[in-house]
Amino acid sequence: MNEIKLFCPASVANVSCGFDVLGFCLDRIGDEMVIRKTFKKGIQILKIDGQNLPLETMNNVAGVAGLALLKAHPVGFGFEIEINKGIKAGSGIGSSAASAAGAVFGINELLGRPFTRKELIQFAMKGEELASGVPHADNVAPVLLGGFTLVRSSKEPDVIGLPTPTQLYATVLHPKIELKTSDARAVLKKNILLEKAIEQWGNLAALVSALYTNDYGLIGRSLVDVVVEPHRSALIPGFHDLKEAAIQTGALGSGISGSGPSMFALSKGKETAVLVGEAMSKSFESYSIEFELHISKINPEGIHIISSK
Amino acid sequence: MNEIKLFCPASVANVSCGFDVLGFCLDRIGDEMVIRKTFKKGIQILKIDGQNLPLETMNNVAGVAGLALLKAHPVGFGFEIEINKGIKAGSGIGSSAASAAGAVFGINELLGRPFTRKELIQFAMKGEELASGVPHADNVAPVLLGGFTLVRSSKEPDVIGLPTPTQLYATVLHPKIELKTSDARAVLKKNILLEKAIEQWGNLAALVSALYTNDYGLIGRSLVDVVVEPHRSALIPGFHDLKEAAIQTGALGSGISGSGPSMFALSKGKETAVLVGEAMSKSFESYSIEFELHISKINPEGIHIISSK
Repeated sequence: MNEIKLFCPASVANVSCGFDVLGFCLDRIGDEMVIRKTFKKGIQILKIDGQNLPLETMNNVAGVAGLALLKAHPVGFGFEIEINKGIKAGSGIGSSAASAAGAVFGINELLGRPFTRKELIQFAMKGEELASGVPHADNVAPVLLGGFTLVRSSKEPDVIGLPTPTQLYATVLHPKIELKTSDARAVLKKNILLEKAIEQWGNLAALVSALYTNDYGLIGRSLVDVVVEPHRSALIPGFHDLKEAAIQTGALGSGISGSGPSMFALSKGKETAVLVGEAMSKSFESYSIEFELHISKINPEGIHIISSK
Repeated sequence: MNEIKLFCPASVANVSCGFDVLGFCLDRIGDEMVIRKTFKKGIQILKIDGQNLPLETMNNVAGVAGLALLKAHPVGFGFEIEINKGIKAGSGIGSSAASAAGAVFGINELLGRPFTRKELIQFAMKGEELASGVPHADNVAPVLLGGFTLVRSSKEPDVIGLPTPTQLYATVLHPKIELKTSDARAVLKKNILLEKAIEQWGNLAALVSALYTNDYGLIGRSLVDVVVEPHRSALIPGFHDLKEAAIQTGALGSGISGSGPSMFALSKGKETAVLVGEAMSKSFESYSIEFELHISKINPEGIHIISSK
């Protein structure tokens, strides 16, 4: 195999009570990447369609992630990468993660899989470090493993793949405003109340249990964020109306995707997810802000191979 | 049925990363209770062996819990209760919870089970409120449901029974010192660092996952408390040596049971749990403080009926 074409999906991190540790993988919305072997060593980003992003290897998340893999597994040749971005940078649904994860996944396939999908996470995190300053795994993990993932620790890293209830669908509304990760970080308090932390970890633990038992009611009761959402929601126009519209239409829960500005809702069944999308769209129309809407089942596979030769 | 004799087990609450929400049920160590129907309405505590505890119904956790049940399900007769305490009050392994849970469990049986075990939690919590000022469920839930339990919220209450890996054994060392719950509460900080909270909820979520997947390694990696233990451990003589001894001998993890002074360790297999107990005992002997040691599998059933007539 000398060339591989991949679909690299978008993802939702944080997931209400799961701030900084939980994420899930979307389906259908994502980037396409072509990666091929070249005689020239290292990594060249040949082109990026759909977004204005740096082509220099060391300034590109796919480049940096790929180089991290090659450092751990040196070879006598190199790789060139073409990216067709389907995910907008800064949308809060894992644009950088899709590219970083895609690069290491594709290179690993072309090398005959020296690493497991789980082992690839550490390399993809280097791309995230370039994008946000922090080598976090909460988007790259679901993109590489599929479904819901839990990052127990990003130091080792220690990532756990969680089961995905098959009827779970996500509705994602992406308001086309710029929300800098630095601003989203700035509103966070360094200290939080112990009682709020207890509420948050009770909800997260219950959510994890509910994923194992397909308990949609408990998923709904657990999708509550009492720590971050109260601060960050102020940065997203219409947040509370959108959330209310989603819940009223039957969504199990709703929250901020990543550090925003995208919002997600989770529903039982595609039909409800579509209705929730209509309600969120209607609610958001009054803001005269352009937006995109995505309906997606939780993608249990993560990245998939479109073709190879 | 007019009389029932129960075994009401001890329990471990908090469980490292699961502060205020997680608990598990012990086996073999516990109270025995006899509850019988009487013509006299209300509840009489006839005698308590093994501990000096109040007999007045309104000052006794079993009395208060039983009355809470009878308020929700009024009947034209009453109950008398005899308690043989096997659990020392103030030991940190759920002495009040065993009595409160036992009372409501026994009365419910004698009434023909108008309530489920889960529904009984709310009544038993009234006993806990008398004992500690807070109507918490993290001890009564495992005593009533067995195994590991998660208290997502104590307001509704919303309690989830978690699976119990069959090879999981607890070692509990109870140093016979008085540690007031008020002192244990006083050392807690009202505010905690967000980064510590994230570490804690990542560990708790991973621990819940590990209970579903029988992943003993992950149980060990997750049994970490970065929020409460650093403060409370100072109140327990020899804490760090005991913990070190347990881990060195093969325990998966170790921490404070409830608000102390008891310490628990969890091990895979009874043999390891016994060795861990020996190592903890040896480590603690230098302190010249009397102590008790308990080795117990995690009790998947909770309270059980010894006899009835």
